[in-house]
Amino acid sequence: MKKDTKVNAGILIIGNEILSGRTQDTNTSTLAKWLNSIGVKITEVRIIPDVEKDIINTLNFLRKNNDYVFTTGGIGPTHDDITAQSVAKAFDVDYEIHKEAFKILESYYKPGEFNKGRQKMTWMPKNAELILNPTSGAPGFNIDNVFCLPGVPSILKSMLGGLKNKIVGGEPILSHTISLRTVESEIANSLTKVQNQNKDVEIGSYPFFHSGKLGVSIVIRSENQSKIDICKSQILEFVKEKKIEIVER
Amino acid sequence: MKKDTKVNAGILIIGNEILSGRTQDTNTSTLAKWLNSIGVKITEVRIIPDVEKDIINTLNFLRKNNDYVFTTGGIGPTHDDITAQSVAKAFDVDYEIHKEAFKILESYYKPGEFNKGRQKMTWMPKNAELILNPTSGAPGFNIDNVFCLPGVPSILKSMLGGLKNKIVGGEPILSHTISLRTVESEIANSLTKVQNQNKDVEIGSYPFFHSGKLGVSIVIRSENQSKIDICKSQILEFVKEKKIEIVER
Repeated sequence: MKKDTKVNAGILIIGNEILSGRTQDTNTSTLAKWLNSIGVKITEVRIIPDVEKDIINTLNFLRKNNDYVFTTGGIGPTHDDITAQSVAKAFDVDYEIHKEAFKILESYYKPGEFNKGRQKMTWMPKNAELILNPTSGAPGFNIDNVFCLPGVPSILKSMLGGLKNKIVGGEPILSHTISLRTVESEIANSLTKVQNQNKDVEIGSYPFFHSGKLGVSIVIRSENQSKIDICKSQILEFVKEKKIEIVER
Repeated sequence: MKKDTKVNAGILIIGNEILSGRTQDTNTSTLAKWLNSIGVKITEVRIIPDVEKDIINTLNFLRKNNDYVFTTGGIGPTHDDITAQSVAKAFDVDYEIHKEAFKILESYYKPGEFNKGRQKMTWMPKNAELILNPTSGAPGFNIDNVFCLPGVPSILKSMLGGLKNKIVGGEPILSHTISLRTVESEIANSLTKVQNQNKDVEIGSYPFFHSGKLGVSIVIRSENQSKIDICKSQILEFVKEKKIEIVER
């Protein structure tokens, strides 16, 4: 595998409501599934509060160490929405009204309803490119390798389609899952042997509890289908020897 | 507020399955709710892969910058469970069989079933203290200010009770929520004024969509109930002026 076929990303979840436990983050999972499907591997996720210096420092670290960074949260109209101004500071560029965003929201709202709060959502880092929002008007934005999305999960999801042309992925990461009616400790040694014989394949083992029964899902991940197939056959071999039942999941 | 009444924590979620989007993390929310309830504020959450150097570096950063660190994941019996050995390396202590954990698991399993995979779960950093597991036997462990818990949400939850005596929280963080039938941009300016008049109170604004209707929850958070009450009355004042409906949530 050549290095240049690997593309990676960091995710930055911004919001006190996640850190207080009030809100269950689901955007990580949404972004992770989508990015994996287009061949972008997530290196790490950080969840931080709505604090300017934290946003600036974390963003500057992540954008230097990843091909892409995706932020969620903090781009709405209220006082606690400080992502756009913090991103402008991180890039050391002006924070100003984005003319195109202004036009979009001016025509989105009824005459007289485009108030100061709503206008705040058109303030962005200078030269940001818009990420269109088919759900609720207010766009996200992209500057260099950083993509800023809203925190509301349904709105975020609706905006991913518009990002496809902006993100160039690597080879898609393929995966195969084998679910077994067993417990991890029954297969741990055999699985270790398979992993040691296939060091560049990622083999994960995940216990589950479903319909009142315990089981383990083994997930094999690689950019290379034939490598997955080799692991799969080695795993099925010890599964057969141990007379472990394979289950649908 | 004296500085010494603030107690904070970092959370470290370890697991490729979260970064691939295969598994939705819920442990952050569980830990966050519990920690907030006992007066421990979460400074940040990091989600990282099952990679030794990432675990060591991230843990060493978090434990130096927080009163407590909680890790989840990677303490099971399979090859991809490398948290315990990585924590030992982060603290530069030996990684060895924990005698008490060995006794617990030896008696937990039927004779002959305490195999090598299961014995792996008794290897821990030298001098670790056990965190008992009422669900599935295998204990978590604590070393210095770091608490290592399993990734399976139901097991993690069952272990928090046993942690209560080990975590000394600060003043509990109190909160009050006001939910309104409005949109954020209608109240943004008024809310900014309240925030500016009460700078040491955390006021968050969170749009919701429930039963087909839009709304906004305003969350006021502080260690000081009277400060919350002042914000509450200022918010209810503009809510009344604007004739906005208050809703149950």
